[in-house]
Amino acid sequence: MSDTAQFQRIAIVGLGLIGSSLAHAARAQGLATHISGHDADPDIRARAEAIDLVDSMHVEIGDAVSGADLVIAATPVGACEAVARAIKDHLAPGTIVTDVGSVKGAVITAMAPHMPENVHLVPGHPVAGTEHSGPEAGFAELFRDRFSILTPPPGANDAAVERLAAFWRALGSDVEIMDAEHHDRVLAITSHLPHLIAYTIVETAADLETELEAQSRDDDVVTTREVIKYSAGGFRDFTRIAASDPTMWRDVFLLNKDAVLEMLGRFTEDLTALQDAIRDDDGDTLFDLFTRTRDIRRGVIEAGQAGRFQYTETGDSED
Amino acid sequence: MSDTAQFQRIAIVGLGLIGSSLAHAARAQGLATHISGHDADPDIRARAEAIDLVDSMHVEIGDAVSGADLVIAATPVGACEAVARAIKDHLAPGTIVTDVGSVKGAVITAMAPHMPENVHLVPGHPVAGTEHSGPEAGFAELFRDRFSILTPPPGANDAAVERLAAFWRALGSDVEIMDAEHHDRVLAITSHLPHLIAYTIVETAADLETELEAQSRDDDVVTTREVIKYSAGGFRDFTRIAASDPTMWRDVFLLNKDAVLEMLGRFTEDLTALQDAIRDDDGDTLFDLFTRTRDIRRGVIEAGQAGRFQYTETGDSED
Repeated sequence: MSDTAQFQRIAIVGLGLIGSSLAHAARAQGLATHISGHDADPDIRARAEAIDLVDSMHVEIGDAVSGADLVIAATPVGACEAVARAIKDHLAPGTIVTDVGSVKGAVITAMAPHMPENVHLVPGHPVAGTEHSGPEAGFAELFRDRFSILTPPPGANDAAVERLAAFWRALGSDVEIMDAEHHDRVLAITSHLPHLIAYTIVETAADLETELEAQSRDDDVVTTREVIKYSAGGFRDFTRIAASDPTMWRDVFLLNKDAVLEMLGRFTEDLTALQDAIRDDDGDTLFDLFTRTRDIRRGVIEAGQAGRFQYTETGDSED
Repeated sequence: MSDTAQFQRIAIVGLGLIGSSLAHAARAQGLATHISGHDADPDIRARAEAIDLVDSMHVEIGDAVSGADLVIAATPVGACEAVARAIKDHLAPGTIVTDVGSVKGAVITAMAPHMPENVHLVPGHPVAGTEHSGPEAGFAELFRDRFSILTPPPGANDAAVERLAAFWRALGSDVEIMDAEHHDRVLAITSHLPHLIAYTIVETAADLETELEAQSRDDDVVTTREVIKYSAGGFRDFTRIAASDPTMWRDVFLLNKDAVLEMLGRFTEDLTALQDAIRDDDGDTLFDLFTRTRDIRRGVIEAGQAGRFQYTETGDSED
């Protein structure tokens, strides 16, 4: 680990999956002399204390960030402005302030105006996660072999950007730097639209029983119990994604609205074309498409992004 | 294992993922004195022979099924009628003929008219699979703790249905019996629509680079390389599903058209409602929906259908 990755005091604000994973990972790599923590929710604070997640827990956010040389806002993106307002008078000169949100343009808009001049705002986004939430969900390896994207605003301090990049690399991530707008378009297609679609199909499936009964089509109702029972046919993968944190995802869709709606429009067009192919018994169109999409999967596997899962019984790895 | 699960000669027609897994599983459980095999594709036959998948491999389908007391058509559902025609004059009296297709109404329509009177047609569908194809993809544990659905046509022989059920139970499956039409509606939502949507979003993502360049919006093109690189944000789960066998899935959509189009219509309505909520900045609607969908995931986990994957490095199990 390079020296630049080390901090005297890292303050983590928001102790959910990402915040708690950061605490574990920073501790495991010895990146901080002291890790302070804060969460707005007293229940989360109590649970985090019960597992000794941080070296010091603070009821007041200002106390958590005082004296920190790295402050990480690991809250839903919708809370970033409130965090910026609450910390601004407690930041030491030279402090690096970053976040982990899945939307970057909105975070810069929310936080930058409140940052003192001698503080370095370098927004970031580790492209990593699970469907689990809360301080108990974190683990030190979450960021290993994953990409962390930094989106420094124009004129950001180069040394601060490099120091934060070194921190992420020390956690096992590959660091990429891009502008916030581009980040938000890339993530709209690789993350936000997939989540939106997963939430939707789980809703469609869950509502079948109720809706069909309301229409008195109870001669052939597909029950929620059946949907769950036979989910191994493909549906279960969507339920995993659709179990992600509701607050985080509400904020993502509201704050990356334009890019999400653009990608959703493209998706809807493609879906309509497939619907027409099915309606017209156009097997060739279906076959050609299903063949092309295989190549993308191959790319994902070759890029080492297919996940680190394997069957427990057979040893048949997904990679 | 019960005696009724045992057969003298099991003929497996079609040696892809499911057919080869059946061969491994039946052999592992000692369910057949002899397993014969056939595939229409000489390359698949050669690859299956290279791994000693079956006891006897046959170039002619009639030779594979001659003398068999259980014949399993493990082909794409679109091939079932051709299989029925090709085997009908070679079946011994009392033989059970089944299949493994993801559509059941169309299989009965395709096969039943060709079956001799003294042969028992009992269509089936193991709700299990991976995104891998071909004879090398099979493994004996594929059906363990999964549901296998049998859809005997009206008037089917009870003893034959029970014998086939015992066979699937011996492979580790839970057996459910339902009528073909209901099966096709249940699978339309739990399997067929999820695959259709996964194929679509992978197409949308793959076409971004080309389409945006064609529109000269190359100032901010999201490249296919980026889509692959940052796929860990959710997209990668869709690429896995969208890597499934193209022929199998073409046939499923063409042969379960009505139920798939019905579920697709419901999904599109729900997606439009979510799109409106995003456009209108209606965070409450988004939050409520994202909270409801979590319950479904809990049901999938409690039903033991969440998959048998686990992280290789952290031991953090998905179950």
